[in-house]
This record gives sequence, C-alpha cells and structure tokens, in this order.
Amino acid sequence: MNRTRLDDRLADLDTDGYLLDASQEDANQLYLSGFTGPDPFLTLYADGEVHVLVSGLEYGRATTEAAADTVERHADYDYEYGGREERNDMYAEFVRDKGVESVSMPPRGPVGTADALRERGIEVAVDADDRLQAVRAVKTDEEIDAIRDAQEANEAAMRAAEELIAGADVAGEDDDAEAGVLLRDGEPLTSERVTEEIEVTLLRHGCALDETIVAGGAQAADPHDRGSGPLRANEAIIVDIFPRSKATKYNADMTRTFCVGEPSDALREWYDLTERALEAALDAVEPGATGEEVHAAACEVYEEAGEPTFRTDPETETGFIHSTGHGIGLDVHESPRLASGGEELEPGHVITVEPGLYDPAVGGVRIEDLVVVTEDGYENLTDYPIEFVAE
Amino acid sequence: MNRTRLDDRLADLDTDGYLLDASQEDANQLYLSGFTGPDPFLTLYADGEVHVLVSGLEYGRATTEAAADTVERHADYDYEYGGREERNDMYAEFVRDKGVESVSMPPRGPVGTADALRERGIEVAVDADDRLQAVRAVKTDEEIDAIRDAQEANEAAMRAAEELIAGADVAGEDDDAEAGVLLRDGEPLTSERVTEEIEVTLLRHGCALDETIVAGGAQAADPHDRGSGPLRANEAIIVDIFPRSKATKYNADMTRTFCVGEPSDALREWYDLTERALEAALDAVEPGATGEEVHAAACEVYEEAGEPTFRTDPETETGFIHSTGHGIGLDVHESPRLASGGEELEPGHVITVEPGLYDPAVGGVRIEDLVVVTEDGYENLTDYPIEFVAE
Repeated sequence: MNRTRLDDRLADLDTDGYLLDASQEDANQLYLSGFTGPDPFLTLYADGEVHVLVSGLEYGRATTEAAADTVERHADYDYEYGGREERNDMYAEFVRDKGVESVSMPPRGPVGTADALRERGIEVAVDADDRLQAVRAVKTDEEIDAIRDAQEANEAAMRAAEELIAGADVAGEDDDAEAGVLLRDGEPLTSERVTEEIEVTLLRHGCALDETIVAGGAQAADPHDRGSGPLRANEAIIVDIFPRSKATKYNADMTRTFCVGEPSDALREWYDLTERALEAALDAVEPGATGEEVHAAACEVYEEAGEPTFRTDPETETGFIHSTGHGIGLDVHESPRLASGGEELEPGHVITVEPGLYDPAVGGVRIEDLVVVTEDGYENLTDYPIEFVAE
Repeated sequence: MNRTRLDDRLADLDTDGYLLDASQEDANQLYLSGFTGPDPFLTLYADGEVHVLVSGLEYGRATTEAAADTVERHADYDYEYGGREERNDMYAEFVRDKGVESVSMPPRGPVGTADALRERGIEVAVDADDRLQAVRAVKTDEEIDAIRDAQEANEAAMRAAEELIAGADVAGEDDDAEAGVLLRDGEPLTSERVTEEIEVTLLRHGCALDETIVAGGAQAADPHDRGSGPLRANEAIIVDIFPRSKATKYNADMTRTFCVGEPSDALREWYDLTERALEAALDAVEPGATGEEVHAAACEVYEEAGEPTFRTDPETETGFIHSTGHGIGLDVHESPRLASGGEELEPGHVITVEPGLYDPAVGGVRIEDLVVVTEDGYENLTDYPIEFVAE
C-alpha cells in the first residue's frame, strides 16, 4: 500500500479518521488492513496509523499478518461474545481510544455500524467518492506483478478451453446428438464441461474463481449469461475468464470469442469490427486521457459501422451495450471506469479493454485484453492471440 | 422462499418496506430477489411484493431469473450511467413509486444509500435484528436437499484428501526431506497439494469454494489458519471443507482431523474428548433447545476434563476457543449461533456442530458434522466416518 498516496487522497476529508467494518471480501478492507479475516472486523486509519480490532479467534493470525500499526482484540475492551449493543459500545470505545471523534466510511460501509456510532456521539460522514478505491486504482510494481501472475494462469486456462472447443467433432445427421452440436468422445460438449476444464486449470495454477462465462449462440448475446448446455458449430462462443490468485488475492481478466466451423458473414463482420474497436480503444490509452475518451474511441468504430451503442440509444438491447472496460485489482471491477464520465487515467492503473457486440439473432462477440497504463502509453499484459476460429 | 414466514417476521417493523442494495454476494439479496447479479442492485419488499431494479445490462436476465413481482431497469427512471446524485435520485424515485416513504435496511446495508435516501426525505431504519437472516435460517425441503447435495460433494473431497494423506510415505533419515515429513512420489506432501486435490474434486462435483483448511501441527492450533507447507507424521492434521454448490449457491461444511503414524497420548486424549463433546452437543440438538444450551453441552465435556473454554476464561488462547457451531445456507456462517446467547432451535435449521481443542504446543483437533433440526431432534447430513488415524 502507498501511504503517501493514501494520506494525499484522504487529506481533504473533514473527519478525524477513516473507518472500515468489513471482512476480507471487501477490497478496501483487504487493502488497508492487509488481513484476511473471514468475518467482519474494524480497521481505523487515523493520524497516519492503521488500527485493527478483531475477535479473539483472529487475534494471533492478525498480529502476524495484518499490515497494521496496532492490533487489538475484543477482550481488550471487556467485550463478551454475543451482545449487539455491547459490541457497538466496544466499537465506539475503540474509535475514541484513538483520539477520534468523527469518522468517514465508504459508501458501502454498514449502516448499522454507522448509525450505532452516531447514537454514541461519534460523527459519521459518508465518503461518497470512495477515496480508497482511487488509492487502490494506482498499483505498485508488486501489485502489477501479482496481476501479471494471475493473467499467466488465465492464459493457461484459456488455452485449455480453446483446445477443448477446437478439438471437438460436429454432430451430423447420423449422430445421437442434434446435428451441429459439438462433440467430445461422442458426448455433447457443454458450457459446463468447458467451464470445469477452465476452473481445474486455474486451480492447478494457484487461482480460484467464482464464475466463468462460456456462452454460445444466443446466450452469448447477454454479456452476463454464464452459459449452459451444448455448444454448437458455426456459432460464436464467448469465453470470459476472471481468475483470482489465491496467494495474492489479485485478479486478472480476459475474453476471447471462438467459433468451430464457418461463422456467418454477420459474425465475421462483428469480429473484425470488435478487433478494430479494441485497437482504437487501446490506441487511446495513455496518462491524461479519460476513461470516457477511451470508451468513445471504441464507440466510434461501432457507430460508424451503424451499430447502436449506449451513446446513440441508452435503451438499446443490441449492439455495444456495456462500457469499454474497468479497473481491476483486489476487485474484478474497480476504478477507473472506461465509460461515460470515466476518470482520467494515471500510470499504474490496470484496466480491461473489452468492446463487444450483442444481438440474440446473431450471437455475441467480445474481445478483452488486460493492460497497465504506463508513463507513455500502456503495456499489454495479455499475450493470448486474437483469432475467431478456434485452433 | 417462504413468504408467510417473511411476512410474519417483518410484521412488527414500523416501515413501509424492506430495502436491499447489494449484489448476489449478499445472501439476503440472493434469497429475496432470487437473482444472481454480479453488481449491486436494489430489491424492495413492500405490501407482499418483491420489486427489483437493475441496470440495462442485467435486465433481460433479471426478467427471466429473478423471483420478483416486478423487474425494472435504470432506463425506466431516465437514468444515464455514471452520475452519483442522479443514481440516488433514481433510487428514491423507485422507492416512492411503490408507495413507500420509509424503509428498513439490514445492519450491513450500505450507509451511502441509506443517507442518500434520508437526504431525499425517505425514512431509513436499521433492522438491527437482521430479520431476513432469521427467515433464511429455517430451510424448506428444497433448500435442505441443496445442502445435502453440497455435502455429498464435500464427502467426496474429504475422501480424496484422506487418501492422499493416508497413502503418504514418511521421510526417514536417508531421505532428502526432513525426517518425519509426509512424502508422495518422493516429494513432500504439502497443505497446498491436499487443498488442490480437494478443490479439484469439488469442481468435478459441481461445487466451488474460496478457501479450504488443511493445517497440521502448530498451524492447526489456530482455527482459521488455512495451512501451508509440508505435513508431518504423528501430528494432527485438520481438514475443514466448506464448499458451495455452483448451481444452487447453498453451502455444506465438515471437518475431520487425521494423523499418519502415532499420535501422542495428549492428541489421542484430545481426539476422544472432542468426539465426546460432539456427541454431547448433538444429543442436545432438538427444537426448543437454545444454541447456548448446545454450546454448553460441548463446553461441559471439555471443562470437566480441565480444558479451558471461553466460558471459564474469555481471554484464553488455548482450549476450546470458538463457538460450537453456526447455521449454514446461502452463507457459510449464518443464524442460528451455537454459542453464548445463541437463539432457540427450530425445525428446518441447518447447523454445524464442531467442537475442537487448540494449543500450539500440542496441535489442533476439530470434528464437525452438519445436521438439520427436525420435529423431534435432528438428522445428521454427514456420513463420513470419525477416525483419527487416516486409512
């Protein structure tokens, strides 16, 4: 963590401290405390020091693991497990003990804790800008290496998925399966089977993930459909993998779109357009450019080709119906946003660039690379080839 | 979801509606909306109806997937992506549109949304009791079956772990590895290697998980240490697996403690005591008993043997240093608690029972079964044998 940047970003807050009440699932908490607590715990940043308060069960591990100046446990405040009001009393006492009478909390901090502290005379303000996100957005070299490692695992998983898809047979009229369905060892090749191969490969490479997208045909036209059932020849198959390193907790993200057989002219045109939109967006990535400008570069390629975007029609359900990308780090989706209103890019921002086109009548195409903004442009962390027909 | 139970539990709230602002990561949200949205969205329960508000990107999937009476999208409120104040305006308009002027939010609901609604004249109260948790705690037969299925995958994974451990050789004086280290194919058998085998087995059975505990020796004395490095003969190895079904999102949970070789007399005594504590706690499980009483039954076995517990010494770092168990469902840890202050058990509660003993000088022992409270006692959902020496 970059404490200078942290102090700089928090300097204009009017409160004495910055308070988090969350488990390790919360990226701000993981970042500020450095502690992987499975249950919610408190972290208070005040006067340049990080203070952590955990249960007795976590205390031993927190003293060695947390990146904190002080680690305390509930018993230090005579708290006995169970009582809600007593817990809130302890929280207020912990905050006051650090000389803090007012705290900022991020917008997604728990309202129960905020209101309980207010009832106990501690002022609680919402940091609507979620300043820790902005601090997290700029990565150190160590964080970039962690993302690079996760991306290496990602490429191995994508390779495993592509080989499974490319090596499939196609069911003909005489097969048990419906004609056109992809087959492995005579059985239909499903989204679920490819997903399993991806996830096992990631585990073997030290990564885990909650979800993967392997969606073909009309399913691929819904960017958040995870995909299910048999995959088919001549349709576009979107494979979007976003693994998390189990050791570092940093994420990677990449999408490729594959086809077995002969894609339609419409799909071929979409693929070419999307590759051009990706290149246009990447060309726009440099320090000082805004996320909005990078998004505009991708949109313009599509709009010139007559494809709808959210800029030309906010209610469209076909065309380019999402943003061009997002920051990535301890969260899969974090600052900055490559979208309307997206903020200025800075060296150290790690972002995805992922244009795509969607229409249930045609299918879906998306290509996503992972890049880091550098002093004079960007470095692409993605090595995986961009090719439509799987091989 | 049981709407009668929901209405019954929410009846004494003084507000017009119950509001959630969360992603599918939040079990209340997943339960009430039935929708697996990866980004936060709103769910409002009012007048017996569930209303969901999602982004345009999620709209199509939400209309088919959400267990809601109405599904709306941001564009229905003329919201354009990006503006924070406009987003809050939209949230207030969505709530008012349903005839709601006051809402309850769970304690871990986001303070940013709560305060923004307050600024817009909507009263927001914290449901400090987290009533949805109490609704979720009592499972339907379908939910119990989902947990049963996850537990079947869990047992396959435990079997894979035990076989890996039991089949290990032990390094002698002439081996490259330190004497006493477990070996597979001549290489040290590590916690990480066993964890990988567990996780791959779970994936093959349709389950995923964020973390697994495979901790031996002194590491096992910290109940939340995930374990790392080589495992050794004659030490206790705790294997705690809590997988989540990818299809249903319901969790299971089980712990066994293994040993290769000859455990010390102290470890053997701990194992026997812990098996007795498990039996005593299970004997106490029935409708009307409280979580506190079940916890007391386990504590008494340990206390009579002279082992410290949180009841006899709230600051102890050795002995039985956690609660006896917890509810499980869409969350791994949910209501009811088997601990001091733990609530009354009801038929349909699915709980873990997991006594254990810890001391870095000896190691750690924990045995955990998963049971469902029935009309006249409990049904144990765990089939896995309880045996200390791996075979």
